[in-house]
Amino acid sequence: MSTFLYMADADRGRRWGELFRRDAPALDFRLWPEAGDPAQVHYLATWQQPEQLAERFPNLKLLFSTGAGVDQFDLATLPPSVQLVRMVEPGIVQGMVEYVLHAVLDLHRDRPAYRRLQAEARWQPLQVRTAAQCRVSVLGLGSLGEAVLQALRGLGFDCAGWSRSRRHIDGVQCFAGEAERADFLRRSDILVCLLPLTDATRGLLDSALFDALPRGAGLVHVGRGPQLVSADLLAALDDGRLAEAVLDVTDPEPLPAGDPLWRHPRVQITPHIASVTQPDTAAAVVLDNLRRFEAGLPLVGLVDRSKGY
Amino acid sequence: MSTFLYMADADRGRRWGELFRRDAPALDFRLWPEAGDPAQVHYLATWQQPEQLAERFPNLKLLFSTGAGVDQFDLATLPPSVQLVRMVEPGIVQGMVEYVLHAVLDLHRDRPAYRRLQAEARWQPLQVRTAAQCRVSVLGLGSLGEAVLQALRGLGFDCAGWSRSRRHIDGVQCFAGEAERADFLRRSDILVCLLPLTDATRGLLDSALFDALPRGAGLVHVGRGPQLVSADLLAALDDGRLAEAVLDVTDPEPLPAGDPLWRHPRVQITPHIASVTQPDTAAAVVLDNLRRFEAGLPLVGLVDRSKGY
Repeated sequence: MSTFLYMADADRGRRWGELFRRDAPALDFRLWPEAGDPAQVHYLATWQQPEQLAERFPNLKLLFSTGAGVDQFDLATLPPSVQLVRMVEPGIVQGMVEYVLHAVLDLHRDRPAYRRLQAEARWQPLQVRTAAQCRVSVLGLGSLGEAVLQALRGLGFDCAGWSRSRRHIDGVQCFAGEAERADFLRRSDILVCLLPLTDATRGLLDSALFDALPRGAGLVHVGRGPQLVSADLLAALDDGRLAEAVLDVTDPEPLPAGDPLWRHPRVQITPHIASVTQPDTAAAVVLDNLRRFEAGLPLVGLVDRSKGY
Repeated sequence: MSTFLYMADADRGRRWGELFRRDAPALDFRLWPEAGDPAQVHYLATWQQPEQLAERFPNLKLLFSTGAGVDQFDLATLPPSVQLVRMVEPGIVQGMVEYVLHAVLDLHRDRPAYRRLQAEARWQPLQVRTAAQCRVSVLGLGSLGEAVLQALRGLGFDCAGWSRSRRHIDGVQCFAGEAERADFLRRSDILVCLLPLTDATRGLLDSALFDALPRGAGLVHVGRGPQLVSADLLAALDDGRLAEAVLDVTDPEPLPAGDPLWRHPRVQITPHIASVTQPDTAAAVVLDNLRRFEAGLPLVGLVDRSKGY
């Protein structure tokens, strides 16, 4: 009998257990630390990579990340026989769409300025622009970036996206590669970062990138903390290159209480909650991937280990 | 020759003038105070009702409100021959959809709580609920209410609407009349008020209504200021019946600097900017209504003076 071992949040894991026992009774679902016989662990779902993974679970076939990213895994130490699968489930996508729509509307409709006016008890209408007059740009065109762009487009924003290799999304101007990055950034009144963390994206959101945006642009960062150079962000906010920033990710996390980002009047911080895996939809997607694996079909969210995402 | 007189914001009026001269050159478009011969004024667009309207413009046929509401007009002093038309134009609808989506997402995703946590430099994730677990209810099912509900439904919220007479909106549970109001309120985790101001809706948002909501509900008020009893709102926030309120309208407007609403930590105030008439789309809708009027077709947004909206 194959064991499916769950090594993340226990509350969510109990819900996975209910669904697995109902929908895949032939599988031995176990919640860490009740791992049973390690040699039987063919499938593992986890957020953090356990130490000595290859030695502890010698017959592991599939490793499921319980989150959308896999940058927390050390790909070099994974045996080539183990396939790594990102979490691509409707709950994550929906949460991200909600968060980014809120953040873009917050900046587009001047809500930070209205909060500052409220603190002074000042009633002062500001000019309302239409969504069509606001150019929103998304870095990263995976399943999250595409869903976010479709929702923004539905509200009438002027939308563009950038990815490493060429993508096509209806109604969205798609840019690709280094050669088109400057043109993409130049048309970004609000820039949304949804890139995976790789060596190529670490430190990407720096002073040079902020220089390439229209003056007074807004930043919505929902990628990974180490992609942002915090000191450069603070400088760009202070000299007017950027007007506002909304950050759901920081480096490190949790952000230490003394970090100046917390106190900057034009930075909004949330504690990495933009999008959270929802147990019911996540378990359903993993069960579907197990069926695909047994049938020899392509897995949804399989990571290309040469690219790192 | 018929005169179309525009008596509101001059900047927007100049834009109307360009569009009227281009698309209706046979009409004598005039910007107040250059009214020309008052007897030629057959059409008037205004936000505030001018004094002595009937006497000054004896041949007035159509009176266009430049905003979505008509509560600022004194229907009793309008001659029966004058038809009153509300502004129903895509710019107003789009602005309202943006504002309400932002406000509902702000409450649904605990953004007020995260802003308070940020002020204390505290990194503390709160539980994320799905949109399907959040019951959003809209009071008022005119063109704005319907557009707002369709956008909320697109994000997966559990949606209902209430109106005086029965309406049908796909995917939205519709309640009607006094008899069904309590059932409607009971399922309102977030209540959005989009009602017109009439004698029946003045003071509607009071302690009795807050009592009928689920404990800890949120309020988004984008109707008219006098519909809300401020003292009852503050009491409901302080005793936990309501968790948060987002107000775009107040009574009076501007809200005086000393009003306690400004300073309440769980009240967000914006200065009546949820939705602003956009000159290009508004002028197009008015021009279309003029063509309908000449052809004897029904007008878009014609006010039923017996109902007051």
